[in-house]
Amino acid sequence: MLSPSFTEIGGGILAPEGFIGNAVCCGIKNPTASRLDLAIIFSAYPCTSSGTFTTNQVKAACVKVCQAHLRQGGVRAIVANSGNANACTGKQGMTDAKNTCHDVATELGINAKEVAVCSTGVIGLPMPMVRITPRFEPLVEGMSRTKGLDIAQAIITSDTTHKEIAVQVKMGNKSFKIGACCKGAGMINPNMATMLCFITTDAGVETSILDACTLTAVEQSFNCITIDGDMSTNDSVIVLANAQSGINIESPQDIATFQSALNYVMLTMAKRVVQDGERVTKFVTVQVQGARNSIDARHAAMAVANSQLVKSSWNGNDPNWGRIIHAIGYSQAKIIQNKVDIDIAGLPACRHGEQTDTPSDALRHAVQVRDFVIHINLNQGKGTHTVYTTDLSPEYVDFNRSEYAYWNQAKADGLTK
Amino acid sequence: MLSPSFTEIGGGILAPEGFIGNAVCCGIKNPTASRLDLAIIFSAYPCTSSGTFTTNQVKAACVKVCQAHLRQGGVRAIVANSGNANACTGKQGMTDAKNTCHDVATELGINAKEVAVCSTGVIGLPMPMVRITPRFEPLVEGMSRTKGLDIAQAIITSDTTHKEIAVQVKMGNKSFKIGACCKGAGMINPNMATMLCFITTDAGVETSILDACTLTAVEQSFNCITIDGDMSTNDSVIVLANAQSGINIESPQDIATFQSALNYVMLTMAKRVVQDGERVTKFVTVQVQGARNSIDARHAAMAVANSQLVKSSWNGNDPNWGRIIHAIGYSQAKIIQNKVDIDIAGLPACRHGEQTDTPSDALRHAVQVRDFVIHINLNQGKGTHTVYTTDLSPEYVDFNRSEYAYWNQAKADGLTK
Repeated sequence: MLSPSFTEIGGGILAPEGFIGNAVCCGIKNPTASRLDLAIIFSAYPCTSSGTFTTNQVKAACVKVCQAHLRQGGVRAIVANSGNANACTGKQGMTDAKNTCHDVATELGINAKEVAVCSTGVIGLPMPMVRITPRFEPLVEGMSRTKGLDIAQAIITSDTTHKEIAVQVKMGNKSFKIGACCKGAGMINPNMATMLCFITTDAGVETSILDACTLTAVEQSFNCITIDGDMSTNDSVIVLANAQSGINIESPQDIATFQSALNYVMLTMAKRVVQDGERVTKFVTVQVQGARNSIDARHAAMAVANSQLVKSSWNGNDPNWGRIIHAIGYSQAKIIQNKVDIDIAGLPACRHGEQTDTPSDALRHAVQVRDFVIHINLNQGKGTHTVYTTDLSPEYVDFNRSEYAYWNQAKADGLTK
Repeated sequence: MLSPSFTEIGGGILAPEGFIGNAVCCGIKNPTASRLDLAIIFSAYPCTSSGTFTTNQVKAACVKVCQAHLRQGGVRAIVANSGNANACTGKQGMTDAKNTCHDVATELGINAKEVAVCSTGVIGLPMPMVRITPRFEPLVEGMSRTKGLDIAQAIITSDTTHKEIAVQVKMGNKSFKIGACCKGAGMINPNMATMLCFITTDAGVETSILDACTLTAVEQSFNCITIDGDMSTNDSVIVLANAQSGINIESPQDIATFQSALNYVMLTMAKRVVQDGERVTKFVTVQVQGARNSIDARHAAMAVANSQLVKSSWNGNDPNWGRIIHAIGYSQAKIIQNKVDIDIAGLPACRHGEQTDTPSDALRHAVQVRDFVIHINLNQGKGTHTVYTTDLSPEYVDFNRSEYAYWNQAKADGLTK
């Protein structure tokens, strides 16, 4: 998958030069627990910055504050907590998000508008600022170049594992780095399936170029994954670039190189989000080709990837092409039924809208793996799109039945103060 | 619910004057089983006819034949089978559907174009015509006025019970009747969640009026229910009117009366479809008011009703307003977060986009019933819409994992010949 010009390295989000960070425990979810739940990422040097956020009209307070700060440009610190999403928390939520930026900025000796704030966790409960605010000082004081793993661990909720990556990109005899950590939209997420991704680079990238590269990379990665079709109030992707490698991304060729590396970093993070869904038993790549255009291809792929009946069949190792074609049929993609071809796990399952002679045992055997591809050819044009998704398991439903239990317990425990 | 001008009566689909019918067993799914799986409804007199069909671009062969016959007008017989959907069956499927109309018409002494043909069941397998065709003769020979219940039973698949209704509508000192039977989109439907509804009336209704009334009634009933967001290849609603009551629906007042009764019949059938989903534990009415317009209201209601996270929470008796507002937020409805009010089962759960003081125990207690209402006020305009839906249960997923098992067995048993 890696292009010859870049290689994976260690260090995660703090691999690029000039970035330091830390993570501490505030007991946001549970005052007696010792898990890391507050993280900071900071560039010791000025940055350009970019971000993309949930398009949900119900946005967490922190998302609104982030968006305002990124519009002004020059964000160089990210403070993030897990355990509480600060969503649907009204004026107090806005105050809490703004105060967080202000207090952390004071500790860092920078302006509040240079700080982005992100939260993930249960929605509708006030932030327990009484436990968070006193931790800003040790959070900042403990910053170092080696805390990348702590940061990656502090932002996860129901993820089974942290997710980080770093790559080094050679350009002539110099190189720049891109680092990232990510928090997944776990299938079994009692806290709303928020996705957070933070990316750092020591390349120098002018804001307008960084914005364009970020949008392009998000479009082919995080916008191509779906687990349950639901979209969080908090989804955020933030990119900081501090130019400390001495490389400035300016020429079309440089931009193409940077874009390629950023695409790889984001797509790797996005795939790990899907692969890490708890109780997920399948990682399915839905490839559509031959659509009238790429928009139609996306409609068809998303309809298949979000169909409860299709996803249930995958969970049962059922190579059910009938459910796939019926999902394509009700999508917004324009199709002609007797032109549709479907391959399941490399075997032809449907040709011209009808079943093939492929033995059903062969098809069933082919899907008894964790990772397979559904390839759909609409045979109408040149539009293509790929989506990464999962099956739907009885356990998904079972685990999502009872956020209430946590919420109620949190209230009873006074965790909402 | 009943308007003073009409009352429910017995007799189901055959209650209106001039209609006869029958149901027999062909062994479509299983040659050794004795369940009814082939039905006929016939008007002894000429009819006007109307129908609405799935908008899925993948349509069963029978749907295509039905649509062609209804466009010509004057359909007066419906032949329907359960066990095989005749979908994705190519040219042979079209031949089978056309031959069915032709053969049944010959038995009835009418034109093939006066026959509508409907199928529900597994898709992608050829129709076992060798077992069906010989049964047309006894099917037609056994027709009587009293077989309404047999017909209702012959068309169901995974429904737990048949669904039928009839109403008598008084107009002055005369009256007309409307009868119906319906086959549900069961939650646990190994055969694709097809919905079929057949309606007969002995009112005289000109085709253009019948088309308009049918569309209006479908819009407020079958188009307002959702179980899993999937749409079948076979969904069909067919209405036959034979004028044998001596009442002709012509004046605006008559049309309003007929419309009201037809609305009641279809909404009753639609609700029963939702209520009968196997393994469903909740029947939830999602009412949206205060949207900018009715289209926005529908978008918001459908987003809530189709959200896997919202539906899972209902299954767990979790009064989770956070998931509801987040689904509203990502819908296509234009909303303002801090104007959204949500009542759950009659209790205020969210005001101005934030949690209320309603004790969480009270909310939890309120949803521990089978049937409750989610009332959403967007406080932006006068648009309203109501959707009827269910929870999502682990058992839904479990039962939908393995259509393959049946399909494979059917092949092994030679049932596809």
